[in-house]
Amino acid sequence: MAEVRVMQKVLASNDALAEVQLAEVDRHGVLSLNLMSGPGAGKTSLVERTVERLRDRVRMYVIEGDIQGSLDAERVAAAGAGVTQINTQGACHLDGMMLQSALPGIDLSAVDLLIIENVGNLVCPAEFRLPAHFNVTLVSTPEGSDKPVKYPLMFERSDLVVITKTDLLPHVDFDVAAVERAVAKLKPGTPVLKLSCRTGEGLDDWLAWLGEKLAAKKQAAG
Amino acid sequence: MAEVRVMQKVLASNDALAEVQLAEVDRHGVLSLNLMSGPGAGKTSLVERTVERLRDRVRMYVIEGDIQGSLDAERVAAAGAGVTQINTQGACHLDGMMLQSALPGIDLSAVDLLIIENVGNLVCPAEFRLPAHFNVTLVSTPEGSDKPVKYPLMFERSDLVVITKTDLLPHVDFDVAAVERAVAKLKPGTPVLKLSCRTGEGLDDWLAWLGEKLAAKKQAAG
Repeated sequence: MAEVRVMQKVLASNDALAEVQLAEVDRHGVLSLNLMSGPGAGKTSLVERTVERLRDRVRMYVIEGDIQGSLDAERVAAAGAGVTQINTQGACHLDGMMLQSALPGIDLSAVDLLIIENVGNLVCPAEFRLPAHFNVTLVSTPEGSDKPVKYPLMFERSDLVVITKTDLLPHVDFDVAAVERAVAKLKPGTPVLKLSCRTGEGLDDWLAWLGEKLAAKKQAAG
Repeated sequence: MAEVRVMQKVLASNDALAEVQLAEVDRHGVLSLNLMSGPGAGKTSLVERTVERLRDRVRMYVIEGDIQGSLDAERVAAAGAGVTQINTQGACHLDGMMLQSALPGIDLSAVDLLIIENVGNLVCPAEFRLPAHFNVTLVSTPEGSDKPVKYPLMFERSDLVVITKTDLLPHVDFDVAAVERAVAKLKPGTPVLKLSCRTGEGLDDWLAWLGEKLAAKKQAAG
């Protein structure tokens, strides 16, 4: 029981911290996304393509969460966005305390879009609220279409689901309609996009979703 | 600090429980494997193929760990092995207490090979010792060859690494040699196998590894 009590306290204080951080993000009119998926579903590839396509008109900043190393941060920096790498030192998710070590060093007044790329994990990151307006969850076609059913919390907490690696559809058993049905059941109304960072197919839908959210944010900021 | 202390106590008591459980497994001369990977790397497919190929000469039993549902257990049962499904109810890994709810119900005297299929997660399961002689970690080619570098603990704790979905190699960026180098650095001497459950390519290497361990176990027991 002790473990559970401690954990609930940790989650409650994490949520409070996330709210304070999100208020700071909002104060600067920044749109913030929490990008989640299992390992290797293509989060960094999607960030790379997004930076390449938007860098001339959207000021982007990326926070990379990884257990160790800076492989992903180097990829994002090469694509042309500012980036801070957080190493969780073994932890399976990002939380508010970790972001607190990164956020004060970022000049939010020079940012339109903040993408927080979480640790590759379909379980734990869903439990920790981050200073993000939208949770975006990726599931890749080779992972199989049973993922929403098997990892329900992640999909219940998602505002957008992106099916990645659609170029592999002819080579794997993946039922797009089954994912759409499962997502609709777990969180009715959640859009499900399909794209391939390899071929570029479907990227326009993602950029359209993003453009709409950026425009709404700008309008709200006044 | 409180959280860390509680966690260390949990891990220590989990390890002690795993040792007691492994002694019971050993008493019956059963070979036990802990199968780990990220979501959708092909753990259940490998178990299915293994059951199909060995069911006539090896008595197998499978414990399926999933957050919820019994999709994987149904697949394994259809392939022809006895199976117990453990639902972790949100937890990101299997631990000794969860296995304690399953093990006493299994007639180990009628089992040669016990496969414990962990929750799909490349992070947390590595921290919890289970009653297994070997940790076997799968990484699928579409996940990318950076996985050992990014999830080091999992590969440090692995006795065998299996690269799955080799049939997709022509369609993805995956560097087999890079994985072999990273694994050799994290845990020198760990074998790395390559296979495809879809085409059957490489399955013989896996069955040879398994046959060797089963023979050694039988010899030790006999």
